[in-house]
Amino acid sequence: MLLPDLRKAVLEANLELVRKGLALYTFGNASGISRKESLVVIKPSGVPYDRMKSMDLVVTDLDGKVVEGKLRPSSDLPTHLILYKSFPSVGGVSHTHSEYATAWAHARRPIPCFGTTHADYFHGPVPVTEEMTDAEIASNYEENTGHAIVRAFSDLDYSAIPAVLVANHGAFAWGADPATSAHNAVILESIARMAYFTLGINPQARAIGRFLHDKHYFRKHGKGAYYGQPREKK
Amino acid sequence: MLLPDLRKAVLEANLELVRKGLALYTFGNASGISRKESLVVIKPSGVPYDRMKSMDLVVTDLDGKVVEGKLRPSSDLPTHLILYKSFPSVGGVSHTHSEYATAWAHARRPIPCFGTTHADYFHGPVPVTEEMTDAEIASNYEENTGHAIVRAFSDLDYSAIPAVLVANHGAFAWGADPATSAHNAVILESIARMAYFTLGINPQARAIGRFLHDKHYFRKHGKGAYYGQPREKK
Amino acid sequence: MLLPDLRKAVLEANLELVRKGLALYTFGNASGISRKESLVVIKPSGVPYDRMKSMDLVVTDLDGKVVEGKLRPSSDLPTHLILYKSFPSVGGVSHTHSEYATAWAHARRPIPCFGTTHADYFHGPVPVTEEMTDAEIASNYEENTGHAIVRAFSDLDYSAIPAVLVANHGAFAWGADPATSAHNAVILESIARMAYFTLGINPQARAIGRFLHDKHYFRKHGKGAYYGQPREKK
Amino acid sequence: MLLPDLRKAVLEANLELVRKGLALYTFGNASGISRKESLVVIKPSGVPYDRMKSMDLVVTDLDGKVVEGKLRPSSDLPTHLILYKSFPSVGGVSHTHSEYATAWAHARRPIPCFGTTHADYFHGPVPVTEEMTDAEIASNYEENTGHAIVRAFSDLDYSAIPAVLVANHGAFAWGADPATSAHNAVILESIARMAYFTLGINPQARAIGRFLHDKHYFRKHGKGAYYGQPREKK
Repeated sequence: MLLPDLRKAVLEANLELVRKGLALYTFGNASGISRKESLVVIKPSGVPYDRMKSMDLVVTDLDGKVVEGKLRPSSDLPTHLILYKSFPSVGGVSHTHSEYATAWAHARRPIPCFGTTHADYFHGPVPVTEEMTDAEIASNYEENTGHAIVRAFSDLDYSAIPAVLVANHGAFAWGADPATSAHNAVILESIARMAYFTLGINPQARAIGRFLHDKHYFRKHGKGAYYGQPREKK
Repeated sequence: MLLPDLRKAVLEANLELVRKGLALYTFGNASGISRKESLVVIKPSGVPYDRMKSMDLVVTDLDGKVVEGKLRPSSDLPTHLILYKSFPSVGGVSHTHSEYATAWAHARRPIPCFGTTHADYFHGPVPVTEEMTDAEIASNYEENTGHAIVRAFSDLDYSAIPAVLVANHGAFAWGADPATSAHNAVILESIARMAYFTLGINPQARAIGRFLHDKHYFRKHGKGAYYGQPREKK
Repeated sequence: MLLPDLRKAVLEANLELVRKGLALYTFGNASGISRKESLVVIKPSGVPYDRMKSMDLVVTDLDGKVVEGKLRPSSDLPTHLILYKSFPSVGGVSHTHSEYATAWAHARRPIPCFGTTHADYFHGPVPVTEEMTDAEIASNYEENTGHAIVRAFSDLDYSAIPAVLVANHGAFAWGADPATSAHNAVILESIARMAYFTLGINPQARAIGRFLHDKHYFRKHGKGAYYGQPREKK
Repeated sequence: MLLPDLRKAVLEANLELVRKGLALYTFGNASGISRKESLVVIKPSGVPYDRMKSMDLVVTDLDGKVVEGKLRPSSDLPTHLILYKSFPSVGGVSHTHSEYATAWAHARRPIPCFGTTHADYFHGPVPVTEEMTDAEIASNYEENTGHAIVRAFSDLDYSAIPAVLVANHGAFAWGADPATSAHNAVILESIARMAYFTLGINPQARAIGRFLHDKHYFRKHGKGAYYGQPREKK
């Protein structure tokens, strides 16, 4: 069996989406990439999480050709592949229809940075893609979803804002590995929920200032980080 | 015991409503039909789910006459029967007072299709029945509830929009078998919740375009479907 | 030990409030009355539910004098006593700060009957007490809370609307026995939640008509009831 | 090992934040102080709760110097220390990003006292700190967070209002010992949730009067308290 460790990490990331309440039935999917071998491991399409085993995951190349696995890969595979090709430092991708993040995607509103929880993880508002054209929907829809995400980051740093809302659809989150992508999907849902409540309390609530935003982001990321334990990765 | 497999499927559908948090106490009910024998299996009225066994379910004919079972059938049986008679491809029906779907029914607003989760399952907004007249309420109320549902689908395809909101009451969902009807009731509650959040973020949120709606619906349904595994039923 | 069966029923009603998420820490309390012996059994004050045993409950007479028990009775005992004295058919009372019902009490708004779930249990809107005067608060506060509840029912039938919102405080529910009072408290929270969502979807939502309200209420209550099983009490 | 009992109490307070749903992943932290020895025990930074043991906790002096422990203390330690130095009767501090309390902090709105649950615990609205200046953020940020909290209490009694919202950040709660601080953090989240719902039902909802507020607060606190059992601490 190819890539047993990556399979295990991808299975675990998929299960984390379920444990944290982000995936109803067969919704959602997480994947991981081996940059060395240019192979991607992804959840099979429409298989219930509670029966899923490491060997059910599907291995494909970067063109989406199945290299190992008896099941069809997730129908969102082409979106994952575009993200891996366009965002070179990404090692894992998670896609969910988690309900609060998806509501922001429905509302086509970026999630403003209302507080430090957001700033700890995302160095700016979480953007929304533009609506896709009928032509983009008609052919290569899932691939074009990936391109729409990449366009949303044309002026943004994908490594500092590791998630996006796909207009009228749901959320994609990513990270250095599958576990981090699932972790970021969970955090995204929490900040989506808090931002929703914030608007309910004060419809005129303003985003935090850049100074506080930077402080929190850089407290956890980069050379000057001092959150967590020295050797810890996350 | 008549129809042991259908009894089992109907019991399981009822329990799925409980597991997913759609049924408080004895609320809600699921049924299934054997088209071959023109017999319906339904939950008994007012019996707690945690004590319910396959043999407690009630078998009736299409006129509602009990054919097997010691308990009274659910008081909503006449509504189920109208649906089975009017919607010939339906094999299972689930009725709930799940809280977000019911709030939309209270508000007498169809649930707009704000995103692809909705489009994956429902090929249009989820309609609301018209309010019933005093005469319709006074006699054969439950049967008239069924007729109100059927009228709400006079210009709609019940097989492509497998759920309805009954004004000021709750939700009915259906499908090819009891499991699918319960599944659709669960999805309905999720999209009702997301649509509620969406309006909270953006009261002017618009439904998605027909093109994207069709794309997602037909990705999962009909000849061109490519979601899930080839042999999978759901 | 006095009244072992009633103690057991009261303990079980208290635990039902916890199981259904209506009681945080030591919040809430349920009681029951033996009309024959004019004795009330009530939860002790400020004792955690998970350690509570039948013998920890307190037995008092209708003046609130402890007849059996080592612990102080709930500080809300005087309210319970007024309800037992004023509402002769009541056999059990449950008090909670369940969050949605309490929010309606905070907002000092009766819960409108937006749907049939409400109508199945409450034959009208759930009323809110008037605010208490400083004098009523200053002395015999808990007893005066009971009087405020009774005044709210001066033109209403307490047996057909078995719950009330105490302004800026929380909810009281009652019934023929302790279990029914806890059951009604749970239903109250569910309809409070649905009514909250309903207003969020449609701030102009209207209550249902009297005809439908009566239909549902009398489907479950009184001589013409046909919901549930013939011998079932609830 | 220093202070085994305090370590145990602090571990338990941290776990209570998790059990009550106030801490996602490694979010949040609780600490306790030994006034006699001027030593503080606090959660280590960024360590998952489910693997945390009493010996993983960090002991520091009041200047934040680690006295015992192999792990880095929580990065919020300097905030805790300022609270211990400024609020002499405090024995435990809990910090969370619990979602409703944090939404009020995002909205920069004090939580009004809408009802008696609030009044039972907090003798006034729960205040929000002022936004910090760029200079305060740039250096000694966590310490300055503590100073901002202390300033918010310049005209308030910290022992009668044992919690605060830090603008755009989250909540701090405190009490006589670590358990009480966690308990207050849980109550704060509940009243934040109810206040949010209250505004949703009635945007013009008014805070309760001072008389009722005092009645409830002093029913549970001080010499005239009559809630709970005589020897009970909480």
